[in-house]
Amino acid sequence: MEDKEEDVRLGANRFSERQPIGTAAQSQDDKDYTEPPQAPLFEPSDFTSWSFYRAGIAEFVATFLFLYISVLTVMGFLKEPTKCKTVGIQGIAWAFGGMIFALVYCTAGISGGHINPAVTFGLFLAGKLSLTRAVFYMVMQCLGAICVAGVVKGFMGKSRYGTLGGGANAVNHGYTKGDGLGAEIVGTFVLVYTVFSATDAKRSARDSHVPILAPLPIGFAVFLVHLATIPITGTGINPARSLGAVIIFDKEKG
Amino acid sequence: MEDKEEDVRLGANRFSERQPIGTAAQSQDDKDYTEPPQAPLFEPSDFTSWSFYRAGIAEFVATFLFLYISVLTVMGFLKEPTKCKTVGIQGIAWAFGGMIFALVYCTAGISGGHINPAVTFGLFLAGKLSLTRAVFYMVMQCLGAICVAGVVKGFMGKSRYGTLGGGANAVNHGYTKGDGLGAEIVGTFVLVYTVFSATDAKRSARDSHVPILAPLPIGFAVFLVHLATIPITGTGINPARSLGAVIIFDKEKG
Amino acid sequence: MEDKEEDVRLGANRFSERQPIGTAAQSQDDKDYTEPPQAPLFEPSDFTSWSFYRAGIAEFVATFLFLYISVLTVMGFLKEPTKCKTVGIQGIAWAFGGMIFALVYCTAGISGGHINPAVTFGLFLAGKLSLTRAVFYMVMQCLGAICVAGVVKGFMGKSRYGTLGGGANAVNHGYTKGDGLGAEIVGTFVLVYTVFSATDAKRSARDSHVPILAPLPIGFAVFLVHLATIPITGTGINPARSLGAVIIFDKEKG
Amino acid sequence: MEDKEEDVRLGANRFSERQPIGTAAQSQDDKDYTEPPQAPLFEPSDFTSWSFYRAGIAEFVATFLFLYISVLTVMGFLKEPTKCKTVGIQGIAWAFGGMIFALVYCTAGISGGHINPAVTFGLFLAGKLSLTRAVFYMVMQCLGAICVAGVVKGFMGKSRYGTLGGGANAVNHGYTKGDGLGAEIVGTFVLVYTVFSATDAKRSARDSHVPILAPLPIGFAVFLVHLATIPITGTGINPARSLGAVIIFDKEKG
Repeated sequence: MEDKEEDVRLGANRFSERQPIGTAAQSQDDKDYTEPPQAPLFEPSDFTSWSFYRAGIAEFVATFLFLYISVLTVMGFLKEPTKCKTVGIQGIAWAFGGMIFALVYCTAGISGGHINPAVTFGLFLAGKLSLTRAVFYMVMQCLGAICVAGVVKGFMGKSRYGTLGGGANAVNHGYTKGDGLGAEIVGTFVLVYTVFSATDAKRSARDSHVPILAPLPIGFAVFLVHLATIPITGTGINPARSLGAVIIFDKEKG
Repeated sequence: MEDKEEDVRLGANRFSERQPIGTAAQSQDDKDYTEPPQAPLFEPSDFTSWSFYRAGIAEFVATFLFLYISVLTVMGFLKEPTKCKTVGIQGIAWAFGGMIFALVYCTAGISGGHINPAVTFGLFLAGKLSLTRAVFYMVMQCLGAICVAGVVKGFMGKSRYGTLGGGANAVNHGYTKGDGLGAEIVGTFVLVYTVFSATDAKRSARDSHVPILAPLPIGFAVFLVHLATIPITGTGINPARSLGAVIIFDKEKG
Repeated sequence: MEDKEEDVRLGANRFSERQPIGTAAQSQDDKDYTEPPQAPLFEPSDFTSWSFYRAGIAEFVATFLFLYISVLTVMGFLKEPTKCKTVGIQGIAWAFGGMIFALVYCTAGISGGHINPAVTFGLFLAGKLSLTRAVFYMVMQCLGAICVAGVVKGFMGKSRYGTLGGGANAVNHGYTKGDGLGAEIVGTFVLVYTVFSATDAKRSARDSHVPILAPLPIGFAVFLVHLATIPITGTGINPARSLGAVIIFDKEKG
Repeated sequence: MEDKEEDVRLGANRFSERQPIGTAAQSQDDKDYTEPPQAPLFEPSDFTSWSFYRAGIAEFVATFLFLYISVLTVMGFLKEPTKCKTVGIQGIAWAFGGMIFALVYCTAGISGGHINPAVTFGLFLAGKLSLTRAVFYMVMQCLGAICVAGVVKGFMGKSRYGTLGGGANAVNHGYTKGDGLGAEIVGTFVLVYTVFSATDAKRSARDSHVPILAPLPIGFAVFLVHLATIPITGTGINPARSLGAVIIFDKEKG
């Protein structure tokens, strides 16, 4: 079971209340860490616990704040005719990566700090989340994204928002759709790889720096994927952001 | 009392001398953390303790240094006719966020590292500061901000300072006053949300990374709010800065 | 033996399974740290252990992701005729340094997080790696770099990739080849100096901040060397990257 | 003795070999930290200990690498006729601040990580260094700075180096000499304030995050002072750098 270590700190809910550390070592004779059990597919107790709903609210607030800051930064960049005065592509990448750092730090103890449906889905596939919780998180994340798109549209005015493309992603001139798809796949892989590495139970037990710095490399991964792929597709590694932009922007066009 | 956890590390004065950790758990059978008591409204002992005045001096120095560096950066950006050579909006945002990081780190152990009257007010409302202390902090912060505005005016010369607008905030062309107000409200919320999350007593006890990294996400939150809202209003989430600029700039105009 | 301290945390495989901490102090009466033994030149047990191959895979994946993100960033910079819109040289430097930070953090516990053949060679010379392991790491790093060059060439199209120079390094106009060589030597020294300092066993035992922050100064060193030497040679402190670019770019030219 | 806390971690040599922690509390009944004794003015044992010379070498190497990277970055910025392509003032500020972060991290355990004669002088005034050690450090720092100025002059060629001003500081157009002096005084104060705060013994004992993050706020302080004062004087808060540039640049002019 060498390849099935699980996170205990970040990126998933810690199960410490179910399995006290140091007691579950039934056959792990040469291990200095414990593996939390797989999350069940359906967990009825979720619906009666306040911490379940609190986690959903935390995901909603975090997704809202993440996209509010980053979409506003994108808009400030797009509306200037000359780019020298703006924060530039680097500034946009900082907005995305920095907010993920700050919000993973803030919400990791409440909901696990996913903020991104792709991360939630990855952790669900790895058995770290129940299906009920994964679906609830993704719904809250998408709601947050839709709210942000509406608020930003209010700020910018209807016509200007449409002109600027609503923050929706599009494959840029000079790249094929295949290029864009490939860039998004590798970009999302970089993010999920960092999340799984940073939250590995085996390493948490051995390397003292792992749980302490964890939100920082996750934020940096988001920053760097944006730095690299904004010139290609605008970077859509967060499906919630893309969905929100599409719903609000397309409704207006129709 | 799930929703009334309080910070023990940063953002408020730690009460450890009043309540030793691990002894106050009167009815918290399933808690592994302790809640400091609410701060009283009026605390007469404050006026006779050196640590009270020391905390005020720390707030004054921190606000002075914070605004000195950031207003000088803003001036360096504004006085160049072509923006390519300047640090850009991103550089200004770094100046604000980076100074908050360094100064929260430096003064957290002395005064709690507020630096911003909005943060002091938020922590007062949450019962983490006495009224006397909150008022004293805010007075010292505003004094620091006024001193900075005077010093920078001395550097730049009277006429140039006036031309550049004195670093005062104004709603930019293309946005209504309502947009500016909304952007400021959400921006201040992002900052206060991060401060409260980073200083949560319950999480400090469980997540080893919370108290260690705390000044970093707070600084990043300030950085990112500036990145997003400088193009809208110049960002006025620090009332002390706005007050200083208005007093010195308006006195000159009148 | 004051001058022979060795890293136990990062930058080399920890030998904790061979030498339990605190038991090997045969004659170190006034030392509060233990030195792992020199790695043997040839270690046959490597070939039968899963952790050996896992470390190689980790080096391959890390080198691939590192160069994927950074070369894509370089390409996005080069293909724009006017540089104001791009991430600039600073953005490129962030891409290199930030990925090293995130990937050293992620792979330090698996392979030691070298990613760079120059680092592997330096640690081999210091006796921290067996020859077999060092050769295996370097082969995997070069394979990763060649794969990236092929993937990026696929994204950019054959002709455009050739026009942009394939991300290969060249001494810029206004500098001699000697300047370029000197800049590369000092740049590589800065990187290896930081790696050895950050992973020093003696300091790990005494300074609590050493093992926790270690990936951060290493990433910063990479960032700053790029900031300084991109205008001179494009910075080739990672031989794997230079090799990959040369193989794929030259094959096309021939 | 509230106001005489001393650093035990960074910024000065730790005296742990002279005073074991926890044993020297002769009259500190309500203190949870210990104060190292004042350093003697003249310490003859220094000249016979290897650690004294090792610390000097570390200061020399650190000052050399710090100025090598930062002066090269400044030169890369200055030699371009149009600034859009360069790293900009923000990139220069990162080069200074980031190198200080990495090098304080690397050399803190060997020499205390001063790198700057102003910091050495400040710590000497506070009684944390003997006079012999302070003088030796400053000599080594200045030697490192002179070597860098020579090496960079070799890279750039004699005539170009002269044209670019040799990286020497000068008060920019639009500011008086008094403005420049004032900006330098406050800038140096920001740096020394951060160093003393980050290395305060009382806080090290109480706040777990103080010793771990310490090099980061010091690096950020350097970054931000440069961001703010490069447009005024080019920032001369490091006397060693200014000295090296003046000696090599003026020798050429004469």
